[in-house]
Amino acid sequence: MKSDELFALLRRRGVLWPTAEIYGGAQGLYDYGPLGAALKRRIEEAWTAWFVGLSRDYYLIDAAEILPEAVVRASGHLENFTDPEVMCDNCHNAFRADTVLEKVRPEGVDGLTPAEIGEIVRAHGVKCPTCGSTNLSVPAPFNLMFGLDFGVTGRERVYLRPETAQSSYLSFPRMWDVGRHALPLGIAICGKAYRNEIAPRQVLFRMRTFTQAELQIFFDPESFPLPFDRVREEKLPVVRAARRLEGSEDVEWVTSGDLVTPGGMPEFYAFHLAHTYRFYRDVLGFPAERLRLLEKSDQERAFYNRIQFDVEADLESLGGFKEIGAVHYRGDYDLGRHGQGSGKDLSVTLTGGRSVLPHVLELTFGPDRSLWALADLHLGKDGERTVWRLPAYLAPVPVGVFPLIPKEHGPFALRLSDELAATGIPNQYDDAGTIGKRYARMDEAGTPFCVTVDGETVGDGPLRGTVTVRTRDTKAQERVPVAELAARLAPFLRAPRPARA
Amino acid sequence: MKSDELFALLRRRGVLWPTAEIYGGAQGLYDYGPLGAALKRRIEEAWTAWFVGLSRDYYLIDAAEILPEAVVRASGHLENFTDPEVMCDNCHNAFRADTVLEKVRPEGVDGLTPAEIGEIVRAHGVKCPTCGSTNLSVPAPFNLMFGLDFGVTGRERVYLRPETAQSSYLSFPRMWDVGRHALPLGIAICGKAYRNEIAPRQVLFRMRTFTQAELQIFFDPESFPLPFDRVREEKLPVVRAARRLEGSEDVEWVTSGDLVTPGGMPEFYAFHLAHTYRFYRDVLGFPAERLRLLEKSDQERAFYNRIQFDVEADLESLGGFKEIGAVHYRGDYDLGRHGQGSGKDLSVTLTGGRSVLPHVLELTFGPDRSLWALADLHLGKDGERTVWRLPAYLAPVPVGVFPLIPKEHGPFALRLSDELAATGIPNQYDDAGTIGKRYARMDEAGTPFCVTVDGETVGDGPLRGTVTVRTRDTKAQERVPVAELAARLAPFLRAPRPARA
Repeated sequence: MKSDELFALLRRRGVLWPTAEIYGGAQGLYDYGPLGAALKRRIEEAWTAWFVGLSRDYYLIDAAEILPEAVVRASGHLENFTDPEVMCDNCHNAFRADTVLEKVRPEGVDGLTPAEIGEIVRAHGVKCPTCGSTNLSVPAPFNLMFGLDFGVTGRERVYLRPETAQSSYLSFPRMWDVGRHALPLGIAICGKAYRNEIAPRQVLFRMRTFTQAELQIFFDPESFPLPFDRVREEKLPVVRAARRLEGSEDVEWVTSGDLVTPGGMPEFYAFHLAHTYRFYRDVLGFPAERLRLLEKSDQERAFYNRIQFDVEADLESLGGFKEIGAVHYRGDYDLGRHGQGSGKDLSVTLTGGRSVLPHVLELTFGPDRSLWALADLHLGKDGERTVWRLPAYLAPVPVGVFPLIPKEHGPFALRLSDELAATGIPNQYDDAGTIGKRYARMDEAGTPFCVTVDGETVGDGPLRGTVTVRTRDTKAQERVPVAELAARLAPFLRAPRPARA
Repeated sequence: MKSDELFALLRRRGVLWPTAEIYGGAQGLYDYGPLGAALKRRIEEAWTAWFVGLSRDYYLIDAAEILPEAVVRASGHLENFTDPEVMCDNCHNAFRADTVLEKVRPEGVDGLTPAEIGEIVRAHGVKCPTCGSTNLSVPAPFNLMFGLDFGVTGRERVYLRPETAQSSYLSFPRMWDVGRHALPLGIAICGKAYRNEIAPRQVLFRMRTFTQAELQIFFDPESFPLPFDRVREEKLPVVRAARRLEGSEDVEWVTSGDLVTPGGMPEFYAFHLAHTYRFYRDVLGFPAERLRLLEKSDQERAFYNRIQFDVEADLESLGGFKEIGAVHYRGDYDLGRHGQGSGKDLSVTLTGGRSVLPHVLELTFGPDRSLWALADLHLGKDGERTVWRLPAYLAPVPVGVFPLIPKEHGPFALRLSDELAATGIPNQYDDAGTIGKRYARMDEAGTPFCVTVDGETVGDGPLRGTVTVRTRDTKAQERVPVAELAARLAPFLRAPRPARA
C-alpha cells in the first residue's frame, strides 16, 4: 500500500489520526486510538523484555523530558543539533535542504557545509517546492530543539530533550552509586523526545513528538566479556561502508563471527548488533529479506561515533529502505563531555583499583516507526479479507470473544471475557453482526484468536464444556475445553526473550 | 518520616533523584531509578486495569503532548490557567500568592481576585520568604503553560498540554466515528503533562513535568444506566461542602446510597466516586482512615464543574491531608467550548434520533503523587528492619531469587530466575552477602516474596525439588515444590479488577 492509503486505513480503524483533527491538525503530531495505543505499548514492552532482558546488569529507568541548558550545551546539541534550512525569499516558506535537493542529490547532504549545499542549489537551479521560485536562500543551520522559558523570572532557559540518551548519561553517576559498582552497566529509557522538525512527513517517521526506546551500555573498553558463541553463527544482512563507497548497496549475508575476525569490529559490538537484528526478525516478526544493517561511513556518521550501523526496513509505503533503529559505539564522548560540563569527574574505580571513564554502546529504537513498519509489512489483503498478521503477543486485542447467538450465549461469553481478563489475557467481546463479520473486524485489527461460545459451552457455576477457537492466519477452527482455554492461549501471548548474558 | 528524610531514603535506594543532579538539578524535575520506574509503571497499569476495566465502553488511547494555540484558547487555558504570582521588588524572586500567605491564610486564595489578595498581603505586612523585605508587588496572574515556537517560521505558537483531558476531548469525534455510536463512551489517557509551576515543591507533589492518568466519560445526561447496587452499601469517608462551610472538616461515613437520595447527587457520580475510593483502598492499599473525599464548594471549584470531590490522603511527610485525585462532573462545558472553537458541531445522534451534546465526568489521578503516598504510608521501620509494605502486585521487584551458597546453588538459582521471568514474573537474582542481608535489601525495596535455592533444589534437566519461600510481611518461611512456584506466586501478582458495568 502507498503511504496515503495505509494511513487512511489506519485512521478508519482508529489506530491513529492527526492530533487536534477538528482544528485541522498540526504538522508532525499524531494521536493513537485504542488499537494503536495498545500496539505501541506492546511493542515497547517487547523491546524492554528483549533488550533489558539481555543482561542482569541492564536496567530500565524513567526521566524528565526537560533538560537544563548546561546539559545540552555540554552534549553539543545547542551548537550542533541542526538541520540545514533553506528559505524561499518569494513565498517565505522554509524547507530542509535535503528535501529540496531530493531529486538532484538523493544521497542526502550529510557532511556537506551550508556553502556547499548552497552551491548545489544554485548550480541545479533548484526551485521552491511551494511556489516554484528559484529565489532560495543560502542554507542556514536551524536548531531542532524546542526551548522553554522555565520558572517565573524568564531568566532560566531549558529544552525539551531531543533524545532520551542524555537522560541516561546524566543518571550514570547515581546508578553507579546505588548499584554493584561494576561494569557493564546498562541504562534503558523508553520515553518521549521532541524535535522541531523543519519538514515533518511520512506520518510516524518524522514527528515532532515521538517515543524513543534507547539502551545505553556503559562498559570498560578493556574488558566487556560476553557469551559471544550465542551469536557467532548468526548470519546478518549487512551492507558494509567500504562496499557502499564502491557504489554497491547490496546486502551481504555475513556471520557475526566473520565480523569480529582480526581487524574487524569488537565482539561487544557484533553481539549487540546480532541481537538487534534478532529482535526485528524474531520479536517484531519482520521478514529477514526486508531488513538490512547499513554501515555508516566515516563521513556520514557523527564524529564521536566509532562504529554505526543503521537498521533499515524495506517499506512499500515509503518507497524503499528506511531507518528504524541503530547501534552506535560512542566511545567516551558522552561521559567526557558531561564531566567537563558539570565539573565532576565521571570516571569510576573498578575492583582492583583501576580508574576508567566508561565507553558507551547505544542501541536506539523507534516504537512509532516500528508500529508503522508493522502495518506496512503485515497489514494487507488475503483474497477477500483484510488481515493484519501481527505476532500474537503484539496484537492490540489478542483474543476476540463472541457469543454464537447473542441472546442465548451472551451471558456466558461475557463471563468468559471477564475470566480471561482476570488471568491477564486482554480480549474484546463482540456480538454485533454475523460471526463472519466479527471475524473480519478482528482480522483487520490483527487479533490472532477468536473464541466463540455456543450451545456446547455451559455455565451452571463455573464455565464448562467447549468453545470454538479460530486462528487468524490459517482460518482453522478447533474445539477446546473452556477449562483449558487460558493455558492454551497464554504461551502465544508472551514475547520472546533472549538468553541472559 | 518527614519529607526530607523520606526523599533521602528513596534517593539512596535509587527510587528517584533530581534530574541532572550532576549539574545541580532543576526545580520541579525528578528522574526515577529502576525501582521507581517499575513501581510507577505498575501503579499506572493498576489504574488502567481498574478504571478502563470498569466498562466495556471505556478505552485507553495515547496522544501528543503538544496542542495548537486554538485548542488552549477554546479550553480557556490561555486566559485562565494562571496562578496569582507575587514578585519581591527587593530581591526579584517570585512566589505563588498562596505560598506567601500560607501562615495568615491557610485555607488558600481560591476565588479571590488579585486585588483582594494584594489587600491581605498589605494588611498583614507579609514579608518576602527569601529576603524578608515587605516590598511585595500586587499579585498578577502568571500562566502556567509552557509555550513553544513550532515550525521554522516562528509564526506558529503551540503549548505543552497542562493536562491530558484536552487530548481526550479532541479525540471524542474520531472515537465516536470508529466506535459503536453509543454513549457512554470513556476515553482514558495516561501520559505526560507540563506546568511551569511558580513554586515547585513537596518533591513529587508539584512538579513541572509529571504523569496524569485521566478518564473522561462522555455520557447522555438523560440516561446513564449503571449497576448502582454494586456500590449502594459502600460506606465512603466524605467531607461535605455544607459542613465545611459550617467549619467542620470531620469525615462522615456515608453510603453511596445515602448520597443519591432525592436532592442528592446523580447515581453515575456516586458510582464512580465509590469506585475511585475503592481503587485507593483496595488496589493501592491506602488505609481507609487515611483517605477522605472532600467536596468542593461553589466558590472553590471551577465554574464549569457541577460537582467536585477531591480525594485526599493523610500523609505524614507532607503534614496532613493532600489532594491525590478528583472526580469532576464538568457538564457539557468541554465539548461545547471545542465545538465553538473548531466551528464543528460536536453533538451526536443517538439511536432513536435524539441529538445530544454529551456531558463529561472526569476521573483524574496522579501516578507520581500516588507513588510518594505509597512510600509515605507503607515504607518504614518494623523493629530493626526497614520494610516497604507495598501490595504484592505493585512491588517493583515482586520476587527475589537467592542461592543459599552462591558457588553451589548459583546456577540453579539463575535458571529459576530466568524461568520465572519467562512466565511473566519479574524477579531479581541476588547472591551478595548473607541471606539476612539479602532479605533486608528486598524488604526495603518492597519485595513481597524471596525464594532461596538450596541443596533440596535439584536440576538435572528441569528444576525439581523444593525451595524456601519467605514472605516479607510475616517473615514466615515455607518449603514449596519448584514445579508449583510460579502458579503459587502468580495470583498475588495480579492487581484487583472491578466487576464490569
